Parts: sequence; structure tokens; C-alpha cells
Amino acid sequence: MLSNIPRVSQNRLKRWAKLLDAKFRRAEGLFLAEGVKVVEELLKSDRQAEALLVLPEKISVWEKIFREAKNKVPAYQLTSPEWKKLSRDREPEGIIAVVKAEKESSASSFLQSSGSHILILHEINNPGNLGALIRSACWFGFSGILLSGNSVDWTNPKAVRASMGGVFSLRILTNIDIAALLPEIRREYILVGSDPHRGVPPRALTKKAALLLGSESHGLPDYLLGEVHERWRIPGGGGAESLSLPQAAAIMMYRMVDGGW
Amino acid sequence: MLSNIPRVSQNRLKRWAKLLDAKFRRAEGLFLAEGVKVVEELLKSDRQAEALLVLPEKISVWEKIFREAKNKVPAYQLTSPEWKKLSRDREPEGIIAVVKAEKESSASSFLQSSGSHILILHEINNPGNLGALIRSACWFGFSGILLSGNSVDWTNPKAVRASMGGVFSLRILTNIDIAALLPEIRREYILVGSDPHRGVPPRALTKKAALLLGSESHGLPDYLLGEVHERWRIPGGGGAESLSLPQAAAIMMYRMVDGGW
Repeated sequence: MLSNIPRVSQNRLKRWAKLLDAKFRRAEGLFLAEGVKVVEELLKSDRQAEALLVLPEKISVWEKIFREAKNKVPAYQLTSPEWKKLSRDREPEGIIAVVKAEKESSASSFLQSSGSHILILHEINNPGNLGALIRSACWFGFSGILLSGNSVDWTNPKAVRASMGGVFSLRILTNIDIAALLPEIRREYILVGSDPHRGVPPRALTKKAALLLGSESHGLPDYLLGEVHERWRIPGGGGAESLSLPQAAAIMMYRMVDGGW
Repeated sequence: MLSNIPRVSQNRLKRWAKLLDAKFRRAEGLFLAEGVKVVEELLKSDRQAEALLVLPEKISVWEKIFREAKNKVPAYQLTSPEWKKLSRDREPEGIIAVVKAEKESSASSFLQSSGSHILILHEINNPGNLGALIRSACWFGFSGILLSGNSVDWTNPKAVRASMGGVFSLRILTNIDIAALLPEIRREYILVGSDPHRGVPPRALTKKAALLLGSESHGLPDYLLGEVHERWRIPGGGGAESLSLPQAAAIMMYRMVDGGW
């Protein structure tokens, strides 16, 4: 099989290596998605890829998923030094997709068409945390995520990787002015905000809801918390004084869908 | 205040820099704990530190916690290049403690004396995940963690950091032969195992329980899963096919203590 996969040209390699930088991702409308599970979720989705890149020595890891993809997407093989210019995995699985960014729909049309819970994230800045939140939101059947301005770019390779491909099954809307959108959100959704100081324990919700979360370091600002229908706090607090954001968020999402929504 | 803190000697610096390596941590009986919150939890605990290291330019971040500690522990200031030899934080807060490892108690005496839930981890190999599990276990008031052989070292700087100091308020027992200990655990605890294939939804437990979890990549082996009283799986499963280990574990721990334990 390997003999049928052409080598990558240095021009292409250079262009794709630039996609590690958010500025170039925006300019090119492309981003990188690494790992077998991530590429598998990409192929299941309706998202388009420009290319599939593979590392020959890992063929046993990526062979199966590659067979499903090879007729749909141009593929190239990379040498190990070439691979290192793109890959961000410490133990690479040997497959990376170059994915085309999609035009985002408007927040209003998304809010109205969504049939299930959504996540709203204010100034999340750690790509690993963002990816973890996306992965959990997928698991619990959330339909999408609104990201405020000043958030980490969800096409960051670490965020895509940590989402385990969740970025391809959720709608993600970026640069959202949350404060401006809140009245509309409050009309359509039960708006829940995380408040480690004055929150009540999470509960199952039987109507569609929006879970609003702030950054790991600063939490939610008062001008947003002041607008929520409910404030939640996970009961607990032993020696360590806080629960980490992805864990607190997973528990809240778990509880929200517990209503059988 | 800075003028009263001596510079670190190159001998000491060299010795402490070696603590980034597990082999030297074991040989020296010392490990590094970085960050304000982590050092704060250390000072609240009965654990002993050999030294406190600070980075002068971050004095505004560590000053408060340093005032509480300075009479108990010898302190040294490091230059920025010296700091880089020890620190693992991308945005350092400028404080690191050199902590003395404690002798572990026996598993049997721990199991009998523990008055609350415990966590049992089989071959966890990611230090960030281990730290996150420790942090959540603290939050939910678990009393300790049993780590199997072939697990990542919990004194790994990343694990200590991600625990946010939780390593200082929990008992952590290492190199546990879980299979050999199971009969004893089963007598004292409700033994719950995570099983993403055949588990039932988590439930509140009103007796003391042990939550057994496997590695992110392989889960639990059958010879351990076969011994549990209950197998749990978090309901869900949308686009992404799995929930990450720290998130699944946090949800299970949350549910366990929900019984008011």
C-alpha cells in the first residue's frame, strides 16, 4: 500500500507546517487534525479534508482508518524528520488530516435550530481544557458550543487532539459577544452558570439548557453571572480548594442530561 | 524581604535539578512541588520541606505564602536561568518547595483505618491525569489512593502540579499488588470498577467504597473487573466515543459521595 502513496512536496510541507500558527490557520482556512480516533471522527462527519498525511513506520496503527479514507482525500507519506514539523503528539499514531475550516452559521440561527443542550465558554484559554470540554459535551449529546472573544482557538492542534474528534460532531461558533446574546439565549434555554462561591448543587434539567462556564483562572465575571437563571456549584471541598474546570464541567453536563433530555 | 533570602549554591541547585528524574527522587527521598496553591497545601499539611526556592521577579505572586513559610523552611532565591533548570510551569508563579518523601504505611493498616471512600488506580501512566484524579479525589473527601505497580510516579512534577497540592492531603500508597489485596478490599469496601462496555449508571453509595480505575488507553483487565461488586459506565455517547479518564472518574466520585457519605 505504501508504494502507492506519493511523497509530500517541500512546498506543501512548508505550507502545512505554518498551520501550527493560528494566524496562518485563519488565512488559509485550514487546520491540522492528528491521531487515528480524530481522523475517524472527521471521516464520519461531513467536514472536508484537503489531504491526509501518514508516517510509514506507523502503518499498523493507521492502516485500517486509511483504507476508509484514501479514495476521498489525497494522501501523502512523510519521512520521520518531515513528520516532526507537523506532529504535536509525543507518541504519534502516524496520521494527520489537513482539514478545511467551514463557514460558521449565525449564532441566532444556531440557537433556534438546536434541539439539545449547549455550552457557552467565556475566555477559556487552555487548548487542552477546551478540547476536554468539547469531548465531554459530545459524550453528553450537546449540540454545540459558543466561544467568546479572547478564547483560545479551537482549531489549535492541542484542542483538536484533546477533543478526540469531538470538534467534528459539534457546532462551534466563535467570537461570540455573550453579553449581547444573553437575552436571546435566556428566551430559548435555561441558562445555568458555574459559581464556585454561591452556587446550588447541579440538578437534572428536562428543558433545553445552556451551561455557561468561565476560565480556569478567573471564573465568570459578575456581569454574566448576574444574568443566569441558576448558579451551580459541585458539592465537596476537602483538602484541595477547587475542582478543575474540565472535571466540574463534566459533572454539570452529566447532571443536566440526567433528566432524560 | 528579598535581601534576606540567600542565593542558592550551585551544588544545591544541581542536586535539586536531578529531582526531575524519578530515579533521583527515589534515591534522595525528595521531590519538587511548584506553584503557590501547591506550596500552600504543603504548608497546611504535616509534610516536611527541605527548602523553599523563589524567583525574585515574581515576588508579588508568592510573597503572601512565603511569609507564612519562611520561618519553617530554609529559603533561597534563584536567578531566571537557574529557575529554568527546575521549573516545569510555562508561566511560573515563582515558588517551588523541595519536599521530603514520607515512609508509606502498609496497605492493610491504611484500608482498615480509612473512614471514607478510596481510589484504586491500575497502571495509570499519564502524570497530568494522575494529578487530576488526585485533585478530584481530594475535592470529594476521599481519604487515599492505592497505585498499582507500573504506574506513573505521583511525585512527578506534573502530577504534583496538576493535583494542586492534593498530594499533600491524601494518603498515597504505591506499588500495590491490587489483585492480591482485593479480598481484603472487598471485605471492607463496596468495590466499584469502571467498565465502559457493560457498566450500569453510577449511583450514590452510603457505605464506604473503593473506586477502581484502569489506564486511559487500556481500561481495567478482566482479572480485576471480574472481582468488583459493581461495574459502572457513565450514560451517554454522542459523536465522540469516549469520555476521558479524569472526567469519567470525577463523575463517578461525585455520584459516590452523593449518598451523603
